[in-house]
Amino acid sequence: MLTLESVRNALSQVMDPELRRDIVGLGMVQDLRVEDGVVSFTLALTTLACPLRESIVEEARRAVLALDGARDVRISLREMTPEERARIWQQPRELERGVAARFNHIDRVLAVMSGKGGVGKSSLAALLAVGLRRRGKRVGVLDADITGPSIPRMFGLREPPPLGPVGILPAETPSGIRVMSINLLLPEEDEAVIWRGPLISGAIQQFWGDVLWGDLDVLVVDLPPGTSDAALTVLQSLPVSGILLVTSPQDLAGMVVRKAARMAEHLGVPIIGLVENMAYVTCPKCGEQIEVFGPSQAVHTATALGVPVLARLPLNPELARLCDNGQVEQYTNAATDALVAMVARWLETGRL
Amino acid sequence: MLTLESVRNALSQVMDPELRRDIVGLGMVQDLRVEDGVVSFTLALTTLACPLRESIVEEARRAVLALDGARDVRISLREMTPEERARIWQQPRELERGVAARFNHIDRVLAVMSGKGGVGKSSLAALLAVGLRRRGKRVGVLDADITGPSIPRMFGLREPPPLGPVGILPAETPSGIRVMSINLLLPEEDEAVIWRGPLISGAIQQFWGDVLWGDLDVLVVDLPPGTSDAALTVLQSLPVSGILLVTSPQDLAGMVVRKAARMAEHLGVPIIGLVENMAYVTCPKCGEQIEVFGPSQAVHTATALGVPVLARLPLNPELARLCDNGQVEQYTNAATDALVAMVARWLETGRL
Repeated sequence: MLTLESVRNALSQVMDPELRRDIVGLGMVQDLRVEDGVVSFTLALTTLACPLRESIVEEARRAVLALDGARDVRISLREMTPEERARIWQQPRELERGVAARFNHIDRVLAVMSGKGGVGKSSLAALLAVGLRRRGKRVGVLDADITGPSIPRMFGLREPPPLGPVGILPAETPSGIRVMSINLLLPEEDEAVIWRGPLISGAIQQFWGDVLWGDLDVLVVDLPPGTSDAALTVLQSLPVSGILLVTSPQDLAGMVVRKAARMAEHLGVPIIGLVENMAYVTCPKCGEQIEVFGPSQAVHTATALGVPVLARLPLNPELARLCDNGQVEQYTNAATDALVAMVARWLETGRL
Repeated sequence: MLTLESVRNALSQVMDPELRRDIVGLGMVQDLRVEDGVVSFTLALTTLACPLRESIVEEARRAVLALDGARDVRISLREMTPEERARIWQQPRELERGVAARFNHIDRVLAVMSGKGGVGKSSLAALLAVGLRRRGKRVGVLDADITGPSIPRMFGLREPPPLGPVGILPAETPSGIRVMSINLLLPEEDEAVIWRGPLISGAIQQFWGDVLWGDLDVLVVDLPPGTSDAALTVLQSLPVSGILLVTSPQDLAGMVVRKAARMAEHLGVPIIGLVENMAYVTCPKCGEQIEVFGPSQAVHTATALGVPVLARLPLNPELARLCDNGQVEQYTNAATDALVAMVARWLETGRL
């Protein structure tokens, strides 16, 4: 079957000969559409006067047509804005700084994003990692929340990570999940990281390029709230395969989450689906399901974005307790398991 | 009574003759202590070779000794780091851009901060504004959350603010609260603001300097999560009188909130007190109080920070509904009223 994902994969084999990186990773492939076997997209070139223009276009065309079911390819060309260009030129320099990255082989990068704070991005990122690990995957978690990192606490990790000859070794949880977070590097976990954007971005790039992740089936990236430096750096500098969008039932949260979705769209990173978190609380006394943030908006939000709803998860005091105690690996929940199964399938086949 | 607040007020009358701004606003007064009538602080000068050094020190000494109960003043001098200096030099240039600021008279700036996302900073900021307005105060709300602004939606504000001859006029709510938010300036409320730090900081500074707030008893500033650009800009460039720190019961949230508190400490801005939000939900069927984020950590966190707990507020679906519908001005709640009464007293007397 011809899917957006299979086309993206094919196109990510096409290299820009000058920049020596693939055109998908460089963000050059935009507005990708697949309809009835016809693939169309815009190719944003650093300059339309690019002497290698024809060869890139031809190679992209051939890569797509080699796919089963591809009948035609329509490529529009446009020139990058000065801003886009500036980013491109910054990228390879930044990434080549990391020697460790050359030793890593990371199959998929999955970003957990929301735009909105406090909707449970970190606990969801942790639970995904735990569930995928239980299914035998080699899993890493990159905590991109530099000013509010929660991941180490949830896994009970405290020791500073050892420095190897070519990079920093990630911490490892009891079940074997590899973790990197700024909080592992601070003398006290409640020390403040009072950094402006460039330092935040630099830290995230180091977590990618200077950490010896080794071979991973998936690297889960836990994003902070907002659509500023951290999110920009992750979506632009890391080869993110897909985004899991997290929301809470409040309409106000949905509005902010739609901002994050728009950002992903602008940057050409696909959203796998939407997870509605904190959907309800079950009263321990009478069993009543209380919708503390109001009635579900998940289908409404997801429809507006054209993405599927993958799960509706409860607010569970037991999860809060386990996260506080560093025992998130002990949590089990049927709704979460079903979500993990879907994500595992997506990892294996590129489809839900 | 000699308090930190009264000393800060006295010192904020002392101007740096070269920078033409007050030494408190410039962040030059650090490590301020009051003990038994003895006031001590460090005065960070742009350079120790400052020719006006003696006159600033002398003026600061006189300003403090003029206060009732001040027996002695001990001033240590130190030189600013290059970074601190860079900030100082950027500040006046940025602020002088705003002509509107010259027409404003804002008595107190109250920042609502958490570090953690989704703990209800915005709804608390809105409720404080509503409560203070009900008590007859002239109130403004500056929404410093540029990438996830919630304030306009809560008040049902949608119209773009009019541009006056010297600045932007804030929007006004039915009860007369003046509001400025990036979402009032966007064509669609769910449009993403994909900006790196300097643009975020620039927007906040414009909301201060280019908005015709007029005469206000208090400007409530709603901060985004994190301790990066937005928080830095607000705490460094705006004359913040005090911070209301918001947390939720989870220990993990408390850890991130302590990071925000450390930031405030580093920057020398006093914390008025701690509010624990989302403390419990009352089951509508059986009346059970469910601690959805676990047992309260408020006293523990507050004690560690040396600040009082001002309130413990429930998670209320009714508040979520009113916020979604733009009717936050209709919400009433006894615990919130008690908090507003405390904040009103603080506004009037500088004490709780």
